[in-house]
Amino acid sequence: MATPTPAYRVSLRIDMPATTAGASELVATAAGTGALVTGLDVAASEGGRLTVDLMCDARNSGHRRELVRVLGALPDVHVRTVGDATFLAHVGGKLEIHAKAPLRNRDDLSRIYTPGVARVCQAIYDTPSKARQLTIKKNTVAVVTDGTAVLGMGDIGPLAALPVMEGKAVLFKEFGGVDAWPIVLDTTDADEIISIVKAIAPAYAGINLEDISAPRCFEIEERLRDELDIPVFHDDQHGTAVVVLAALINALKVVGKDIADVRIVVSGVGAAGHAIIRLLAAQGAKDIVGYGRTGALHAGDTEGMNAHRRWLAENTNPRGVSGSLKEGLKDADVFIGVSTGNILTGEDIATMADDAIVFALANPTPEVDPTEAAETAAIVATGRSDYPNQINNVLAFPGLLDAEVSEISDEVLRVAAVAIAETITDEELLPAYIIPGVFDERVAPRVSEAVQEAAAAKRAAAE
Amino acid sequence: MATPTPAYRVSLRIDMPATTAGASELVATAAGTGALVTGLDVAASEGGRLTVDLMCDARNSGHRRELVRVLGALPDVHVRTVGDATFLAHVGGKLEIHAKAPLRNRDDLSRIYTPGVARVCQAIYDTPSKARQLTIKKNTVAVVTDGTAVLGMGDIGPLAALPVMEGKAVLFKEFGGVDAWPIVLDTTDADEIISIVKAIAPAYAGINLEDISAPRCFEIEERLRDELDIPVFHDDQHGTAVVVLAALINALKVVGKDIADVRIVVSGVGAAGHAIIRLLAAQGAKDIVGYGRTGALHAGDTEGMNAHRRWLAENTNPRGVSGSLKEGLKDADVFIGVSTGNILTGEDIATMADDAIVFALANPTPEVDPTEAAETAAIVATGRSDYPNQINNVLAFPGLLDAEVSEISDEVLRVAAVAIAETITDEELLPAYIIPGVFDERVAPRVSEAVQEAAAAKRAAAE
Repeated sequence: MATPTPAYRVSLRIDMPATTAGASELVATAAGTGALVTGLDVAASEGGRLTVDLMCDARNSGHRRELVRVLGALPDVHVRTVGDATFLAHVGGKLEIHAKAPLRNRDDLSRIYTPGVARVCQAIYDTPSKARQLTIKKNTVAVVTDGTAVLGMGDIGPLAALPVMEGKAVLFKEFGGVDAWPIVLDTTDADEIISIVKAIAPAYAGINLEDISAPRCFEIEERLRDELDIPVFHDDQHGTAVVVLAALINALKVVGKDIADVRIVVSGVGAAGHAIIRLLAAQGAKDIVGYGRTGALHAGDTEGMNAHRRWLAENTNPRGVSGSLKEGLKDADVFIGVSTGNILTGEDIATMADDAIVFALANPTPEVDPTEAAETAAIVATGRSDYPNQINNVLAFPGLLDAEVSEISDEVLRVAAVAIAETITDEELLPAYIIPGVFDERVAPRVSEAVQEAAAAKRAAAE
Repeated sequence: MATPTPAYRVSLRIDMPATTAGASELVATAAGTGALVTGLDVAASEGGRLTVDLMCDARNSGHRRELVRVLGALPDVHVRTVGDATFLAHVGGKLEIHAKAPLRNRDDLSRIYTPGVARVCQAIYDTPSKARQLTIKKNTVAVVTDGTAVLGMGDIGPLAALPVMEGKAVLFKEFGGVDAWPIVLDTTDADEIISIVKAIAPAYAGINLEDISAPRCFEIEERLRDELDIPVFHDDQHGTAVVVLAALINALKVVGKDIADVRIVVSGVGAAGHAIIRLLAAQGAKDIVGYGRTGALHAGDTEGMNAHRRWLAENTNPRGVSGSLKEGLKDADVFIGVSTGNILTGEDIATMADDAIVFALANPTPEVDPTEAAETAAIVATGRSDYPNQINNVLAFPGLLDAEVSEISDEVLRVAAVAIAETITDEELLPAYIIPGVFDERVAPRVSEAVQEAAAAKRAAAE
């Protein structure tokens, strides 16, 4: 995993002699450590000396320290300050709340606050559905977490989870035009989380559950879905499943295999794994084996399993495979990892069938080094934004929210996945381009349209 | 109360003959109904006819209908559309969530989301206080309500209260630079509200309770204050009390009376009345009588009272006054109303002492018509933004938040009130200008500075 990443973008302010050779040496020295130099700006020139800003991507914090050391060791070169672009991007938080209309004078105030606002309140009190037009409810989603299953970090609590939720809100806004607000909860009690989300729900058009650990997330999502009249989406389950299915549809097209014929191995049977397996089955996959920490889930060994895991054991693994993940990989066509980092090597991937498909989605460290996997696999995808084929949950929800579905069924998710897959035309399709990028503006309208069409067809069929 | 208000700003699109006389007649006819014409724009001119947009402030919705009728009755004039500027200002809600930094490409994404964000999460997990620098917690306040005591409307519930909370958030942003987010709760259970606010608290620098009815608001505020490590502010209590005291300090200066000598009548002994009375007493007021629905609170009749009301009965009203509010007004120097609209007439105000001060703060309809009150009172203030001397809570909190006080004590509130009052210099002070406007940028820094100085003095004295 030793490649430089913008996650470790470092900005060095350097004082050095004003010679071209000096600047070249600076860049060459940085590059010599394995850093990716992304920019060099001269900030000032005075008395035969230069102040330059050198930007480079490092591999990790050790590499960053090394950079500072070797550059500072160059003759007559001084490293003045070392800025970390990732931390700088977080200072003060990543979200801001703005008034939509300017508040310039008393007239404005009379309309948006007292006394005018009372008329709007009264109108909503008389006709509650007007809140969809006259308040933020129209376009606002709560991003709710208890911080128990955050990225690859696990249970880090609500406060430390906040940067991820802010980031998610940024994605919703930038990619879906949706206003999303982080709600980080200082409780892990499922009943309490349910009652809190119900209590805060009036202001929102939808609830996006995020990074809540299994199996509590299943109960929370199911009960909220029953008890609320707005869509409840668990991104780790539904978002991941939709985008995985979309990517798999296209990956299978690239390698010319049929979903009904392939052997699929899923590592991780928590929230994401469970939802992925259900959705792949809904699309016609027959041979799926799920692996937990103790090996393959099979119908012969369901003792002590929770209901969700038992469902998987009883409804997957038709060949009754048992044993370890590494054993199960042999001759598999598809590997989907939603577990933990660095549990497989390139050799493990090499035991898979020809034209293997590897989705190593553990974040931030994938199940297998994607570069190693790519030595034998035909297609590799990760959850990281600094590799091609990023399986990013955010592709799913904005379109679904826009379609104003009141309930998120498996069929709705399947339709959304097909719509995302079809965003990439056959001409565009490549091993390194099986899933649209998060910046692809075609996705959300396409998902919205497909889901609405499916809903209309269902209504028509029922009549 | 029959004056036109921007709260009823109406925008009429009118089709009429293209004559100057026609336009004049239009304006004259509108003005003849008592409307305040604020603008006339020609939107189009074609074939000897004009399309004009006529903007005027009406008194109420009946007046608006009358306007449409009389204008439409003019020869050859047709009213095409009638727009309501207040409702238009609310379409889609009044708040928007923005990403602070642009998200243009994968590099940006790697820093604000995975994988970079994981490093920021880890840093906060290791050192929780870093959340104050690296997340929205730094500058974000929750505006929490259950919708039980909203403006003059009472218990309208969370959904209908949302426009007010959005408006409050706009005020926080525009006047204090604070990001505020509305949390409208679909529960009125005090214990549940307390546990919800505690659970959502990690993301916020402060909690602003708003429009929660008494006496629950007292318990909620007190317990949250004990159990949270961020300031908890109940705007209806503390915000109102601070601004009332500030306005009273200046009003007394204008009429040349001393707070220790004046007779003060307070109508309304709920959240606001209670806090106002406590704060006036802290500033040295001696003769305060509080009136509830059944008349004057006095120490001889405390049966069946809740603890807060009993405290008032036992610690105010030194002359042991009983009877009705109207009776109590006789010879009073100061009337402060935080109760309901239209309970007093100009004649009642005329019975007060010379140079009477009237703060009729019920919203949107004051306790007494401010125009009638002004016939005999020396100074009149309301809670409305369309009259002079608006007692607006929003003057208090931004400065207090900026001072980063961890607890809101009576002394902190008193210092804040004095600082607000002193924003207006003796040269500026006038009967119609006793309190700085919400657009006065001097207020928040002044409050912040005064509160910090007082805290430093207290620490120095303790050493």
